[in-house]
Amino acid sequence: MGKVLRGRSGRRRGAPDTRGEILAAARDVFGERGYDGASVRAIAAAAGVDPALVHHYFGTKEKLFLAAMDIPFDPELIADAVIDDAGGDGIGERAIRTFLGVWSQPAGRAPILALLRSAMQHEAAARLMRQFVTRAILGRVLVAFEGVPDGALRAEAMVSQLIGLAITRYVVKLEPIASVSDEELVRLIAPVLQRYYDGAFEQD
Amino acid sequence: MGKVLRGRSGRRRGAPDTRGEILAAARDVFGERGYDGASVRAIAAAAGVDPALVHHYFGTKEKLFLAAMDIPFDPELIADAVIDDAGGDGIGERAIRTFLGVWSQPAGRAPILALLRSAMQHEAAARLMRQFVTRAILGRVLVAFEGVPDGALRAEAMVSQLIGLAITRYVVKLEPIASVSDEELVRLIAPVLQRYYDGAFEQD
Repeated sequence: MGKVLRGRSGRRRGAPDTRGEILAAARDVFGERGYDGASVRAIAAAAGVDPALVHHYFGTKEKLFLAAMDIPFDPELIADAVIDDAGGDGIGERAIRTFLGVWSQPAGRAPILALLRSAMQHEAAARLMRQFVTRAILGRVLVAFEGVPDGALRAEAMVSQLIGLAITRYVVKLEPIASVSDEELVRLIAPVLQRYYDGAFEQD
Repeated sequence: MGKVLRGRSGRRRGAPDTRGEILAAARDVFGERGYDGASVRAIAAAAGVDPALVHHYFGTKEKLFLAAMDIPFDPELIADAVIDDAGGDGIGERAIRTFLGVWSQPAGRAPILALLRSAMQHEAAARLMRQFVTRAILGRVLVAFEGVPDGALRAEAMVSQLIGLAITRYVVKLEPIASVSDEELVRLIAPVLQRYYDGAFEQD
């Protein structure tokens, strides 16, 4: 029986600090075990609550991770927007537009930058980010790469271009790439992302 | 790719702690004023030595910066290797090969990652990195972009792809991009860098 169900200190079910305790426990357990190694059960145990309560509040492990890391977008919606019904057709343009939609808002970019910053400092955080990106983003987007040779490598090349764009545009702020319009970036980068999807390796 | 990596210079004759004091002062002054705003004169003043001594030990402001930040490659040699005598012809392949030459060695990547990590945390460090990359790398490489419309934007797009590659391959270590061979990466990424140099904006 978890502490909320025991009614510790007369707290009501759903008391905000129970949620907060679960989130704090989630950050600890994700940090220690990585994304793949952390389970809702282990997080519940660390928070001293019943796993059912964690599921009740947060749904899946992925949604708990997003809440714990304060990530304000849903990777499933992101992947849907990138894949669309068209699959690989126009995927370059959809990828850059979806990406700019998230990053153009400071609230969207801050938590990813925080994850990335940690990843650059600690191998445990790098593992966490690697596993999360692999499961939550790549795992879904790869649907569009079925039958494409070297699909995973191509998808990661697209991700690499987008991360590098984020850093040059929003962090280091090189000019002019920091201040050109989103539309200009779409024209510059969509063809390159599309090339990663369906272009030949080597020079044409 | 040893040719762009400098040998770690041995300590010069003379009081070792004077060199160390100049380097410490350089880190302070670069951090406070940025790359453009820092002068050898101000750094000498902060170290309590004559500017001529700073020039004697370190040469130019750029070389002093490289020593202070422990960056073991010479941006001038990097830019030369990228531009070569061929200018834009084959620049994509030369850029990725030169880049991999530096990053494949931990001693080459650690100080850049340290700069980047600071840039993600403090605006002053972001400015320092922005100004250094602009002066020391872009300023030189842009010679190859003379007469190319949107040359600066294209050059920065190339830089963005390379930074993103560094992060996915060496920091977050997504698979398979972290473990494919350098040659595979050249085949994947050289055409894209070349496209940034001479390709059309928008889909072909």
